[in-house]
Amino acid sequence: MSKPYVLGVDIGGTNTVFGIVDARGQVIASDSIKTRKHANFDDYIAELHEGVTRLLKANDAEDKIYGIGIGAPNGNYYTGEIQNPPNLPWGPIIPLAEKVSKAFGGIPVSVTNDANAAALGEMTYGAARGMKDFIMITLGTGVGSGIVVNGQLVYGHDGFAGELGHLIVKRNNGRVCGCGRTGCLEAYCSATGVARTAREFLEVRTEPSTLRNLQIEDITSKDVYDAAVAGDKLAKEIFEYTGTILGQTFADMVAFSSPQAIILFGGLAKSGDLLMRPLKEAFDKSILPIFRGKTKILLSELKESDAAVLGASALGWEAKYRYEVPSFDHPTSSSVAEDAK
Amino acid sequence: MSKPYVLGVDIGGTNTVFGIVDARGQVIASDSIKTRKHANFDDYIAELHEGVTRLLKANDAEDKIYGIGIGAPNGNYYTGEIQNPPNLPWGPIIPLAEKVSKAFGGIPVSVTNDANAAALGEMTYGAARGMKDFIMITLGTGVGSGIVVNGQLVYGHDGFAGELGHLIVKRNNGRVCGCGRTGCLEAYCSATGVARTAREFLEVRTEPSTLRNLQIEDITSKDVYDAAVAGDKLAKEIFEYTGTILGQTFADMVAFSSPQAIILFGGLAKSGDLLMRPLKEAFDKSILPIFRGKTKILLSELKESDAAVLGASALGWEAKYRYEVPSFDHPTSSSVAEDAK
Repeated sequence: MSKPYVLGVDIGGTNTVFGIVDARGQVIASDSIKTRKHANFDDYIAELHEGVTRLLKANDAEDKIYGIGIGAPNGNYYTGEIQNPPNLPWGPIIPLAEKVSKAFGGIPVSVTNDANAAALGEMTYGAARGMKDFIMITLGTGVGSGIVVNGQLVYGHDGFAGELGHLIVKRNNGRVCGCGRTGCLEAYCSATGVARTAREFLEVRTEPSTLRNLQIEDITSKDVYDAAVAGDKLAKEIFEYTGTILGQTFADMVAFSSPQAIILFGGLAKSGDLLMRPLKEAFDKSILPIFRGKTKILLSELKESDAAVLGASALGWEAKYRYEVPSFDHPTSSSVAEDAK
Repeated sequence: MSKPYVLGVDIGGTNTVFGIVDARGQVIASDSIKTRKHANFDDYIAELHEGVTRLLKANDAEDKIYGIGIGAPNGNYYTGEIQNPPNLPWGPIIPLAEKVSKAFGGIPVSVTNDANAAALGEMTYGAARGMKDFIMITLGTGVGSGIVVNGQLVYGHDGFAGELGHLIVKRNNGRVCGCGRTGCLEAYCSATGVARTAREFLEVRTEPSTLRNLQIEDITSKDVYDAAVAGDKLAKEIFEYTGTILGQTFADMVAFSSPQAIILFGGLAKSGDLLMRPLKEAFDKSILPIFRGKTKILLSELKESDAAVLGASALGWEAKYRYEVPSFDHPTSSSVAEDAK
């Protein structure tokens, strides 16, 4: 194959990571730049182009890139734009695919959000290989999701489907969420949600806990995890609480798309039985009888450091937005005939 | 076209309605048989075949049926079976598509559940024409749903996706649902749910209401509707309560598949502003900001008497299960050659 690689680009709030990926999902090489260094988007694109070009040269991969896939917060698959990103210095509408394809001389580009990219990566290279119906849930600072139905990502009519972190899990007196509403899954079951649960439990309850030795406002989900692993009863209950809400909400997700699996990704997903036991118990207990025992709860099989780039790169194989490089030499009839041979 | 019609069959708990439908969605003729008359499934199929044959003859439509689409409770699109139907005398596994295709000499047959059939009907002939992403909600004795994503029905990995009537709307102290769990949407927002709300309100509260003139255990959603239309304050509040739960839950559905529209069908959907005003208010208030103002709430455009048959018939155009009629005369080489001409 003359173009055996794709380029995966993951635009995060802090870093933009990019990597050259082959058809078997090997990350040949990767590098990164700071996302927020340039207030001007064109300057950012120029630095990205420079960084990628350097990486391609060093790996003898110039002219070997089939397509570019980009995962970005609020990335819209349909328009190739980033729309109203909460954590990026540009906006409100950033014509990402167009600018990148133009910078790279017309290589096709596709864009989606980070959780959708994770789902694609899992389907192409990870735990969802061979599955046509599954849901990817990313448990990080927030709760993201990518939904696959009939082998296709669910984008919805506007490109923004799959916001399962914002399902309402508490209708009354729910916690305030970053989205401006109250009671969202994300406010309970993200890493920050776990820290909030810890603060709530420590304030309301009186049992001893090693977590009380920490500054309450500085407690992280990692602190809760460490305390639970060391046997702290209150810390374990925090995971019990978190897992139970996740399991109950997963049962609602199954009523929607009846997936073969729900696949967990992100720091919190690596909490082992502390999270998974109460999660699976609540899931089995909450699920509609006709779905019982059919949907697996799995962990991502992608290496965390590679996953974002891999996921984005999977989109590169079917990249669709291609900037038409203006041609100043109009083709002569002989060159057209040449092409047609 | 030599086969310009499809046959739509709607198997309900009481009646089985069937109709001849043309490509423009006109029901040429229809008839029905009693569903529960025969304890033996083969006898039921024989009577269905007889009734359909009579209808086809009367309309000069023999040999003009392209395919047969069947909507049935717990109908599974993948297997062509009815699996564990709650209200039918046969089971647990009924090979519906096979038996029907066999009875009709090998005409291709497809099967799905009734709410999915309604969604297909709406997409082919009704309010969802031209839409690729929408959700159909049927508000009848229960709450059913059919979800369309990327122009395709969402069947899930097992064929049973789209049970949105069983999303949990009340986590604590929810009403017991027919599915055996508690707090399902269906227990609140179906016709029976509205009647239950009426009984609850009448017991717990003290205001006067014309509903108090009725036997409390006999109150139906129709009684509540009539009272509300006549100005009864408590009856109006019952619709307020029902609409609010629907609107809040619809916001969760949008977070899943970001549909262009949610389309309502069924008796309760015809309650006008009594239901729609609180529903839309709660929906607008509950929806995630990025989806605000994008998803329409619409009413079905299909005539209720035709809708079930029309919906089922839409499946007939792409019917996939074909019973291979056994051939006892092995083809001679000359007859094969004849066929190949």
